[in-house]
Amino acid sequence: MGQPHLLSPAGFRAGAIYAGIKTKPTPDVGLLVCDVIATAAAVFTTNKVFAAPIKIGREHVAGGKLRGVVVNAGNANACTGRQGEKDALRMCALAGQVVECEPKLILPSSTGIIGHLMPMDKIEIGIRGAAANLGRDEHHAHSFAAAILTTDLKRKAAAVTVKIGGKSITIAGVCKGSGMIGPRMALHATMLAYLTTDAALPAGLLRTLLSAASEASFNAVTVDDHTSTNDTACILASGLSGVKIDSPTAIKSFAAALNEVCQSLAYQIAADGEGATKVVTITVRQAKDQAAAKAIARAIANSPLVKCAMHGNDPNWGRIVSAAGLAGVAFDPDRSTLTLQGTVVFRAGQPVKFDAEKVSKSLKAAEVKVDLACKLGTAEATCWTCDLSKDYVTINADYHT
Amino acid sequence: MGQPHLLSPAGFRAGAIYAGIKTKPTPDVGLLVCDVIATAAAVFTTNKVFAAPIKIGREHVAGGKLRGVVVNAGNANACTGRQGEKDALRMCALAGQVVECEPKLILPSSTGIIGHLMPMDKIEIGIRGAAANLGRDEHHAHSFAAAILTTDLKRKAAAVTVKIGGKSITIAGVCKGSGMIGPRMALHATMLAYLTTDAALPAGLLRTLLSAASEASFNAVTVDDHTSTNDTACILASGLSGVKIDSPTAIKSFAAALNEVCQSLAYQIAADGEGATKVVTITVRQAKDQAAAKAIARAIANSPLVKCAMHGNDPNWGRIVSAAGLAGVAFDPDRSTLTLQGTVVFRAGQPVKFDAEKVSKSLKAAEVKVDLACKLGTAEATCWTCDLSKDYVTINADYHT
Repeated sequence: MGQPHLLSPAGFRAGAIYAGIKTKPTPDVGLLVCDVIATAAAVFTTNKVFAAPIKIGREHVAGGKLRGVVVNAGNANACTGRQGEKDALRMCALAGQVVECEPKLILPSSTGIIGHLMPMDKIEIGIRGAAANLGRDEHHAHSFAAAILTTDLKRKAAAVTVKIGGKSITIAGVCKGSGMIGPRMALHATMLAYLTTDAALPAGLLRTLLSAASEASFNAVTVDDHTSTNDTACILASGLSGVKIDSPTAIKSFAAALNEVCQSLAYQIAADGEGATKVVTITVRQAKDQAAAKAIARAIANSPLVKCAMHGNDPNWGRIVSAAGLAGVAFDPDRSTLTLQGTVVFRAGQPVKFDAEKVSKSLKAAEVKVDLACKLGTAEATCWTCDLSKDYVTINADYHT
Repeated sequence: MGQPHLLSPAGFRAGAIYAGIKTKPTPDVGLLVCDVIATAAAVFTTNKVFAAPIKIGREHVAGGKLRGVVVNAGNANACTGRQGEKDALRMCALAGQVVECEPKLILPSSTGIIGHLMPMDKIEIGIRGAAANLGRDEHHAHSFAAAILTTDLKRKAAAVTVKIGGKSITIAGVCKGSGMIGPRMALHATMLAYLTTDAALPAGLLRTLLSAASEASFNAVTVDDHTSTNDTACILASGLSGVKIDSPTAIKSFAAALNEVCQSLAYQIAADGEGATKVVTITVRQAKDQAAAKAIARAIANSPLVKCAMHGNDPNWGRIVSAAGLAGVAFDPDRSTLTLQGTVVFRAGQPVKFDAEKVSKSLKAAEVKVDLACKLGTAEATCWTCDLSKDYVTINADYHT
């Protein structure tokens, strides 16, 4: 047995095919299916402009039960009015035929261009083709993971196996996300993530744990702070491991494993941000409260000036400290300490002498760690972003309507 | 007489000199002096990390009276601790010697790199040199306007002459701002703006009118939404026209002229945004309330995806509508109409057929107008930004610590 993957938890199959929706000939329609009715939970975008599949998906997951997910890339089915809703429902109906279940047990997802009606002829061929390719092997998982990608350069996947009560359960997931990334998902996230597990737990608990895990992972990653119309994270629990998550210890173990999978996926999104050459991990410590810690981390992560400095390997700490100051929450530079890749560059309102050339060299890394200690409390938050390069501009000035 | 300029209002002189603080050999120390004690008001950055001259400036303008302004470019005197404060005070003392007034009647301003102690030897030479160059001519105004620039490519100036009670008064101003532009100034922007007028009005009224004018101008312009540590807008009223602003009609006329000058300056900042090739004017109409109108306009103006699309002349209205939806205020795509350069591209939750090539051509302009009607109320707000180009990245990845 190799590394665990999306289909390692007992009871899951996936398939995908290229149906000609994306211009790049890589899979663009995928199906993820559970052999049994899975306990399900999902979080969705909080953007007031949300796509048709979000509307339908909210309704379908409300009952806490799903048999599967149908997804396409290349068209977001957003801002498409009534026809868009009909098309999302039709995707569920087609997937339901394959799985032999009611359409409402299917969660639909779409990602791609906004404002174009779905090419339903291609979608229909795609769903039937994906159905014909369903399987439980690693290549099936890879194929499904590929079908949700748009401008992403890499597939994103993570899986963790933990022992709970002496028995093993697996939590696995795949996701996409490269641009239009600033998820703020709530129990109602074009970041898409699909998670599978063979643990058994009630829908309410699953929803609570997914929401908490999303907050510390997907909602803490930003490429351009543009909350998409289609963000979705969905988890299906088959229960087929026979392991019930019903004791405080079991819940704690499951939650930790779920957080680990979600954070790995979120990190992969930052690493594959449009035009990114590095991940910037921003940790704000000793903040007054959790909200302040998050707001400061996000303000730093979203500053184009900070992101350009990171791209240029410039230890321009002034931009970082001033970004913290504009977050609109409690922050006092005179109490703060800023550390870049392990070197203190600012302390107590004043610059610290440091070897700028050496620190600049240390910024030429796949991951840059920014650590800001506020000395105002005990709250801590971490946020992941990437640098801002000319390639981001090229990608987004040329991605034409 | 030519066009009115900063020194057209009666009672003002200015001077500037290159003292070697900026690497580029253009003026970097300037003095603006009023012949009499001027009624004065100023608004400053709301960033919790504010520069030493902001701290000193707040104290000095608190009394509503100033004789002048001393300013340098090339060093922001921010995050410089106690020594920074001493240096800002020393700038006031040196300027006070020139003007023959108490130091507290001088407002200090600085812009440039954060976290470096001020080169006080150069500053001292600069202030004495600027003093030697004081005068009332247009070239003196130009020289002062140049001394406040950093990455700006152009001088920014505006002036309006209006008749109030049969007599003329002039309001004039200069400003700088190109990067780190997302002012949120309050009575308490590195956008710097200095305004002069020969009208006579009490300090309290001047403060109220400057605050209102700033809100609809400087606070409505964004390049990268990074509120600086040094943002300042200051107005000096000499009163030497003999025109008192003391009736509702006079106040209305003065306020309108002040708004016009401030909006012209704000527009010039957007046009000279780092790497900018065009101004994007975003007007949000029929919003639920003023706060919602502003939040939506700012969310659109700050979206890197929208700014890249504008750079690529791409009528990608989906990015604009989804940016409106993420503003966190009342917005309903099903009620909204989006117009790009006069062409309706989205209405009532659905795309509208339009000639994408024609609209794309219309986006190749010095100014692009984005108009979003929300149909939820009567509030309106306008925000100015620029496109996001590779040059922005070049400028900010290479502006080294």
